[in-house]
Amino acid sequence: MVNAENDGEVVLESLLKANGSVLSIKELRLLAEGQLAAPEPVDVDNWMALVAADLSDDLRDALRSFMASCKAKEIERSLAPAARVEALRAALSNQDLDGFLVPLSDEHQSEFPPKRAQRLAWLTGFTGSAGIAVILKEKAALFVDGRYTLQVREQADPELYEFCSISADPPGSWIPKNALAGTRIGYDPWLHTQSGIAPLIEKCRSAQIHLIQVESNPLDQVWTDQPPAPLAPVYPHPVDIAGRSATEKISEAAAVIQGHGAMAAVLTAPDSIAWLLNVRGGDLPNTPVSLGFAILNVSGAVDLFMDERKITPAVRTEFGESISLRQPDEFGMALATLGTVGTPVLVAPSTAPVWVVNQLEAAGAEIVAKDDPCVLPKACKNTVELQGVRNAHIRDGAALCSFLAWLSEAGPTGDVDELSAVDKLYGFRAGGDNFKGLSFDTISGAGANGAVVHYRVTRETNRKLESGSLFLVDSGAQYLDGTTDVTRTVAIGSPTAEMRDRFTRVLKGHAGIATARFPIGTSGGQLDSLARQPLWNVGLDFEHGTGHGVGAYLGVHEGPHRIAKRSADVPFQPGMIVSNEPGYYKEGAYGIRIENLEVVRAAPVEESGDDSREMLEFEALTLAPIDVALVDTTIMTADEIDWLNSYHARVRSTITPLVDAKTAVWLEGATQPLSIPTAS
Amino acid sequence: MVNAENDGEVVLESLLKANGSVLSIKELRLLAEGQLAAPEPVDVDNWMALVAADLSDDLRDALRSFMASCKAKEIERSLAPAARVEALRAALSNQDLDGFLVPLSDEHQSEFPPKRAQRLAWLTGFTGSAGIAVILKEKAALFVDGRYTLQVREQADPELYEFCSISADPPGSWIPKNALAGTRIGYDPWLHTQSGIAPLIEKCRSAQIHLIQVESNPLDQVWTDQPPAPLAPVYPHPVDIAGRSATEKISEAAAVIQGHGAMAAVLTAPDSIAWLLNVRGGDLPNTPVSLGFAILNVSGAVDLFMDERKITPAVRTEFGESISLRQPDEFGMALATLGTVGTPVLVAPSTAPVWVVNQLEAAGAEIVAKDDPCVLPKACKNTVELQGVRNAHIRDGAALCSFLAWLSEAGPTGDVDELSAVDKLYGFRAGGDNFKGLSFDTISGAGANGAVVHYRVTRETNRKLESGSLFLVDSGAQYLDGTTDVTRTVAIGSPTAEMRDRFTRVLKGHAGIATARFPIGTSGGQLDSLARQPLWNVGLDFEHGTGHGVGAYLGVHEGPHRIAKRSADVPFQPGMIVSNEPGYYKEGAYGIRIENLEVVRAAPVEESGDDSREMLEFEALTLAPIDVALVDTTIMTADEIDWLNSYHARVRSTITPLVDAKTAVWLEGATQPLSIPTAS
Repeated sequence: MVNAENDGEVVLESLLKANGSVLSIKELRLLAEGQLAAPEPVDVDNWMALVAADLSDDLRDALRSFMASCKAKEIERSLAPAARVEALRAALSNQDLDGFLVPLSDEHQSEFPPKRAQRLAWLTGFTGSAGIAVILKEKAALFVDGRYTLQVREQADPELYEFCSISADPPGSWIPKNALAGTRIGYDPWLHTQSGIAPLIEKCRSAQIHLIQVESNPLDQVWTDQPPAPLAPVYPHPVDIAGRSATEKISEAAAVIQGHGAMAAVLTAPDSIAWLLNVRGGDLPNTPVSLGFAILNVSGAVDLFMDERKITPAVRTEFGESISLRQPDEFGMALATLGTVGTPVLVAPSTAPVWVVNQLEAAGAEIVAKDDPCVLPKACKNTVELQGVRNAHIRDGAALCSFLAWLSEAGPTGDVDELSAVDKLYGFRAGGDNFKGLSFDTISGAGANGAVVHYRVTRETNRKLESGSLFLVDSGAQYLDGTTDVTRTVAIGSPTAEMRDRFTRVLKGHAGIATARFPIGTSGGQLDSLARQPLWNVGLDFEHGTGHGVGAYLGVHEGPHRIAKRSADVPFQPGMIVSNEPGYYKEGAYGIRIENLEVVRAAPVEESGDDSREMLEFEALTLAPIDVALVDTTIMTADEIDWLNSYHARVRSTITPLVDAKTAVWLEGATQPLSIPTAS
Repeated sequence: MVNAENDGEVVLESLLKANGSVLSIKELRLLAEGQLAAPEPVDVDNWMALVAADLSDDLRDALRSFMASCKAKEIERSLAPAARVEALRAALSNQDLDGFLVPLSDEHQSEFPPKRAQRLAWLTGFTGSAGIAVILKEKAALFVDGRYTLQVREQADPELYEFCSISADPPGSWIPKNALAGTRIGYDPWLHTQSGIAPLIEKCRSAQIHLIQVESNPLDQVWTDQPPAPLAPVYPHPVDIAGRSATEKISEAAAVIQGHGAMAAVLTAPDSIAWLLNVRGGDLPNTPVSLGFAILNVSGAVDLFMDERKITPAVRTEFGESISLRQPDEFGMALATLGTVGTPVLVAPSTAPVWVVNQLEAAGAEIVAKDDPCVLPKACKNTVELQGVRNAHIRDGAALCSFLAWLSEAGPTGDVDELSAVDKLYGFRAGGDNFKGLSFDTISGAGANGAVVHYRVTRETNRKLESGSLFLVDSGAQYLDGTTDVTRTVAIGSPTAEMRDRFTRVLKGHAGIATARFPIGTSGGQLDSLARQPLWNVGLDFEHGTGHGVGAYLGVHEGPHRIAKRSADVPFQPGMIVSNEPGYYKEGAYGIRIENLEVVRAAPVEESGDDSREMLEFEALTLAPIDVALVDTTIMTADEIDWLNSYHARVRSTITPLVDAKTAVWLEGATQPLSIPTAS
């Protein structure tokens, strides 16, 4: 086995050389072990991007095996799950605590925290994107939502954890049932927000259970091989892509702060800081940001708390005088200084760590609880950004069309599996201009795997694309000029009538959003039902939001707007980008999702008399055919068919010039207009 | 002039006799002057109902003139508007105040307060349904919303009041601009709620302006002829109509109170009390409730604070031992008693007067701020109530169809005007079983008057129904077994193509709601856009909610659910009744509204595989044809046409047996199915 592995490494080494890799095998191993800090590798796609621009299939396979073996060794080397909990409990005793909260997120409430901050995964093994553990002396519980009920059972040990539904039996109800009055449960004030922790403190207080802030995280004390903080370099994001100078953005944000009666704002969201200062980083997989904090004063002066090793000379030059670079450990003192002069300070209660609020309050500052002043202007893309985003989507569309054309031939052969499809798609994208990597791990779900909404293919779950099944691929890329996110569902061979019915209903819902016009002031919560009504009509629904905001070479998920059943009351404004992704999932059978990114724009004025008003509408950014083999026109309206035909015509005319002849022929066929069935 | 008037009274006297009136002319005059307390007359329809069941047209006209002349005399007799403000300012000085808030509502936050509580109207002359005045020493302002911009200019004196938009320049922004620091502005804690007044106090505090609660209302001191409190008798509402006993409802509400950790709840909403105790009263026009307060204890004991002169012997018997009748002036002491024992008390912050909260807090009670525990169960009608409501709608439908059939002949003659249409419709309804009066003043809008959303016809605004125009009639009745509310818009002569287009879009929106299916947990805020999308598509919209809750022989407006752009997040539950009333209003030209009441019910389970879920849908309660002369089927989908045809078939089969032969013939024609246009 050892030999075989060494043989594998020899093969890998020669493949690395043959492909002109910039990394040695030793560096790859350090990356896998989390000992090399920048940029963070979480999956094989990111590795490949590091190794070389263009890779052979052999090298891909070799890299994948190598990565898996590194991971296996890492797990072997470190503490077993039971020993980890035991060690944590011992550390708690030392701090006079009876329990501890282990949330999933980090100091920045990152959706995908860096490896260093993946405390929940290290402790429990659970790697889903939402969850929290409560560790008591005698028992422990792991709370996840409905998406992860199965996954948590596979990853975490039921001997160590009770698995609870975060909605039906959340920590606020579980703790009082499982802890006695007087119990002291610690939490790390860096990892919780005021609005997140307050209700739990309240619930515990009624049961005379005390939630206590710790000064140092006891889990970090026992996580002996906790990876270092990422140290990826920070680069300027040029104004000819950003569209507006940092100075301009800073004065606008300062005016918002002043409008709220505050003298400064504390920024804790890395994408807000990246947007405001026109910089990009590499501390996180998929999202080009650098972790840090900032204080923005109404004067326009910015204190940026970030490890100076990350700051490239180009950024230093760019920053000039109004942006002061300070070391991360000065952050607390800076907050205290703000407080001692009694300053009213804006802090976003849903994103800032409790620690920040504590420091300010302890020093005497007045907390002005308002949204992060960067979030709304960041969401409303300017015309320069939009031009870049449109261009990025055209390149991304060409890559996706090339992939779909390839799939139309390769899919039915039975030789394609989920992993090879991911690689193939990656290859088409990686060749494009301004390509910087994926915007999230590609979701590649064949057959029943497509029904798992947050599916990530592994070597264990990898399935072949089989005839008579559906294949769902949800993917996106980061380009210097824009971020993409697109889902297409394709029939492999002949679909059933049920598949066509469901796909068409999802398409009708997608069209409902795509063709919506709505007055200024309308929010995504008001439009959401347009995406669901065709499914609701036959007693079906889908269990995720209809759409999320998307950044411009920033997070593939951003606020403040969204399209969803609840908590979606921020009105749309021109320039906001939002995904339009209704779906339908039949457990154990197939999954369907049709996703385009849309940008909000002013609708042309209608000839409807004197009282017609300014309306908004969506413009589709994403350009790739929707599989007409899955469309049943008999349940569509003429307007819906017209919309699909004109979307397809636009895809064909825009993408054809950018693809090879074979893809162009396929595109021609895939975008042929559908005719409107005559009434019976 | 005096003679002429006396002549009029002689004629009226003889007409009263001829029609078998139960009231003398003297009693009518006392009613007009507000000196006769029960039931309150606000319009000629209510007078007519008091006078006799069936009236001649002559008597109607005579009553209308008489009422107008009484009103004119009342105004003449009393203080002029300038003198009223002056008197109020003098009273303020006596109380060491520099200003005073005069809101529209009463102690119960009634939508249509009794005459005694119409302080804003008395002071300013403004009679709209929403507004507030701020009186300062040197200036005063009257704040109304967009619906009343025109009306306020006609009714109030611009020399006395600055007219402000309640949204663009509300009291919270106007006061700091118009009052100096240190200004003391009084408000009556009986007339404001905690959640209503708190933001204003906050705004004033930043400008160092003090809002001060008054012990007695200075306006009441100067309103020398303020009418007495209404004293209409309270009757039992029989359990065979209510469906559930008061005892049952009380224990359910008590359980809710206990669930919130409270020992008692203070009920301040008259419809909650009427529902809970299975009684009905007559203190307000149109809504069969009696004004009073109640304290509901978790034990199930109820203290009802209500003038004992209103309580009929039948009600006393019905109440039994668990309901204690107490005098209104004992209410404060009872709240103080609750407080002294430190009881946690549930109070609804959006409906309870500040005065109630004060009394409780001063005495040491702990306020549990939660919704009135009666509101949700009251909204979910039980099967007995629903049977009654369905029956009431069938009778109401027969009356409306008779009216529409009459209108189809009389309308084009040019002899019908808005007032005579109101009378005619009233006559058809008044003959029905269980009829108790109108549920609101009929909105009868011909031509341009139809575009005024809250239009109330007067002798001055009365218009003839003209050929080529639209006539909008929004009306409803109170029956012992149900409350109705219906709007139909009818073409008089030939409509224009634009009218047909707009009407059809409103109809498509109405159908969008009527045919919606939606999962449990869905609220009206999520469905609202289904009613608007057809208008939004051509740059149009309507400026009111799509639907409001409706009581069962209670308020025609009730919560907690609604269909609207905002503040509509209470999920629908089976048994909730909601109006479905999209519209379109072209100022100066015409108004369109199509309104049915709908009841929420479980949808039949669809054959859509294993994952089909329980869905809800609406059942139309209202039964009356929609004018097909205004329908343009070329812009409708086949599903929409199918829905309309099947609704019309149901109207025809249900109503035909209940109407005369002439109406039946008209109904046959009006409900003929429309055919689906063939695709071009």
